[in-house]
Amino acid sequence: MRAVEWNPVGPCVRVVDQRQLPAELTCLDLFDVQDVVTAITGMAVRGAPTIGATAAFGLALAAHASSAASLPAFWDGIGQASRRLRSTRPTAINLGWALDRLTGRVRDANPPTVEAAQAAFLMAAQQLADEEVARNRRIGQHGAALLSDGDTVIHHCHTGALAAVDYGTALGVIRAAHEQGKRLHVLVDETRPRLQGARLTAWELQQLGVAFEIIPDSAAGHYLQRGEVQAVLVGADRVAANGDLANKIGTYMLALAAQASRVPFYAVFPTSTVDLLCASGEDIPIEDRPPEEVLSLSIDGSPVAPPGASARNPAFDVTPYSLITGLVTEVGIIHPPYGPALHRALTEGLPA
Amino acid sequence: MRAVEWNPVGPCVRVVDQRQLPAELTCLDLFDVQDVVTAITGMAVRGAPTIGATAAFGLALAAHASSAASLPAFWDGIGQASRRLRSTRPTAINLGWALDRLTGRVRDANPPTVEAAQAAFLMAAQQLADEEVARNRRIGQHGAALLSDGDTVIHHCHTGALAAVDYGTALGVIRAAHEQGKRLHVLVDETRPRLQGARLTAWELQQLGVAFEIIPDSAAGHYLQRGEVQAVLVGADRVAANGDLANKIGTYMLALAAQASRVPFYAVFPTSTVDLLCASGEDIPIEDRPPEEVLSLSIDGSPVAPPGASARNPAFDVTPYSLITGLVTEVGIIHPPYGPALHRALTEGLPA
Repeated sequence: MRAVEWNPVGPCVRVVDQRQLPAELTCLDLFDVQDVVTAITGMAVRGAPTIGATAAFGLALAAHASSAASLPAFWDGIGQASRRLRSTRPTAINLGWALDRLTGRVRDANPPTVEAAQAAFLMAAQQLADEEVARNRRIGQHGAALLSDGDTVIHHCHTGALAAVDYGTALGVIRAAHEQGKRLHVLVDETRPRLQGARLTAWELQQLGVAFEIIPDSAAGHYLQRGEVQAVLVGADRVAANGDLANKIGTYMLALAAQASRVPFYAVFPTSTVDLLCASGEDIPIEDRPPEEVLSLSIDGSPVAPPGASARNPAFDVTPYSLITGLVTEVGIIHPPYGPALHRALTEGLPA
Repeated sequence: MRAVEWNPVGPCVRVVDQRQLPAELTCLDLFDVQDVVTAITGMAVRGAPTIGATAAFGLALAAHASSAASLPAFWDGIGQASRRLRSTRPTAINLGWALDRLTGRVRDANPPTVEAAQAAFLMAAQQLADEEVARNRRIGQHGAALLSDGDTVIHHCHTGALAAVDYGTALGVIRAAHEQGKRLHVLVDETRPRLQGARLTAWELQQLGVAFEIIPDSAAGHYLQRGEVQAVLVGADRVAANGDLANKIGTYMLALAAQASRVPFYAVFPTSTVDLLCASGEDIPIEDRPPEEVLSLSIDGSPVAPPGASARNPAFDVTPYSLITGLVTEVGIIHPPYGPALHRALTEGLPA
């Protein structure tokens, strides 16, 4: 199954509850916009493309539930639901992109009745999710060419099927290379504080049969320095017009270490992740998440931090374009200088 | 109490069990060399200077327990115990330094009988521990001058009283500046995998009344990049002749991030940490610890990593001298070029 799907029974949006993995593979059924909001803010659903698709299905849910007697009233309700969904998380741009694209497509179709608009929302949300998966497969094909048989790769956070509706982005590149018969070894950054690497990336690599070892995030530099790594692959939550990008906290330090050892550092994402309205990384809002995510750790049943301790928990950081060897997208691999190439990819290269 | 003390009742070596903090402050009584070996390898006792002092007391314990009928037989036993203690952990040089210095001092005193040698070992071990604390206070005085009222400081791992017999090294610098009335704010790297930052550094800062917040190790770069940090302070487990140093895993990536943001990066250690026999960091042996230390994490009672996952767990990494702004020692602050200055500090500047 995909990380997010429309379930006609209900109807509801069925998502994999990513908080329960790897202990168990369970699903959540989301029956209204509030359920979708809670699933996204609580990170049951995570990964920029999956968040975007889930929000789109959430808007289809709002459309389906509408009891509006007129089209203007229907569109008012859609606007309200869209704003609620958009406000769930600030950094990933795919969220707003998916909501805008979905709404735009239905508006363009100019449905004559509320019933027609409701049907159009569901169809368009489904189409968006299908397109996401198709894009991921193209990303994987482009990116796989960067990896050679025998390579050791460092991967940060989680960018697999669960994060990207299906197939994956950065992890999709590893998957595509593996499917081509290349033997890879992945050093999996555990990715504090929520440990998406140890929990989700390790689990997906196990399913795929790709060799891996989990490492503390802080150990990546050691293996880069020792010459044991041929490439670093990460995803992105928002890419600015100049190629700066926001991604999971720790990406910036990993990029510094890759550059110091002259190991190629690739960011892998669909072009929907690009936000030309952000001139540089400084314009990207960085989400601060609850300190409890850092402090909740226990070892052998004892809490790690002393009672009363406080913590800071920035969910993302900004990696400047100068540290990035290439951007792997569904339209191909973009090389520096990124500004003109990103603009071109979005205005000419992006499939309809 | 100190992190390690001689207890005449027994007699035994009494150490703070650092694995139990911050949940509880408990002590372990070590009655023979095997107890000391187990405490060091299992990291009940950790921190390079504390390891050195504990090993020295362990050798005094071996001397005390000796039933040798002659001085040659006594020294044979001492040699065996010393080798066992030395082999517990490979990276920190203070361990071997403390054993060598202790043995050297007793040999120099040329005790005429086994009983005299036994007494001399205990006295010399006590003296080594006292000297360690005195050195830490001098280190603190030198280093405090580097910090200003209102500074935010990033600290990695744990270098406080528990790690350094008493007072601390890098954390001793923060403590000395705090005692001078400077208001500091410490961003405490939690320090995966064993979380010495979240567990021990946070606990000691609480005791001292210094303001702090715990951060994931991977978030340090974010705060450095944003200009929120005025200095980075770390300890060292072994310093090579050229100024390269081995310290807790993650130190290297932190140093890269400090340099990228032009924030001063200071390593703080007693000169006993310098190993002139290592020409550069490449000569320092790096300890690989059990994968379970990375994999044993659980959140809300569930194991984090999937069953069957493997991990790598290098305990230390090497930070090249070019990333280090200054070395803070008991003989003063050493500036680049480090090679000649370190040699001078060890041959002329080191107190007897």
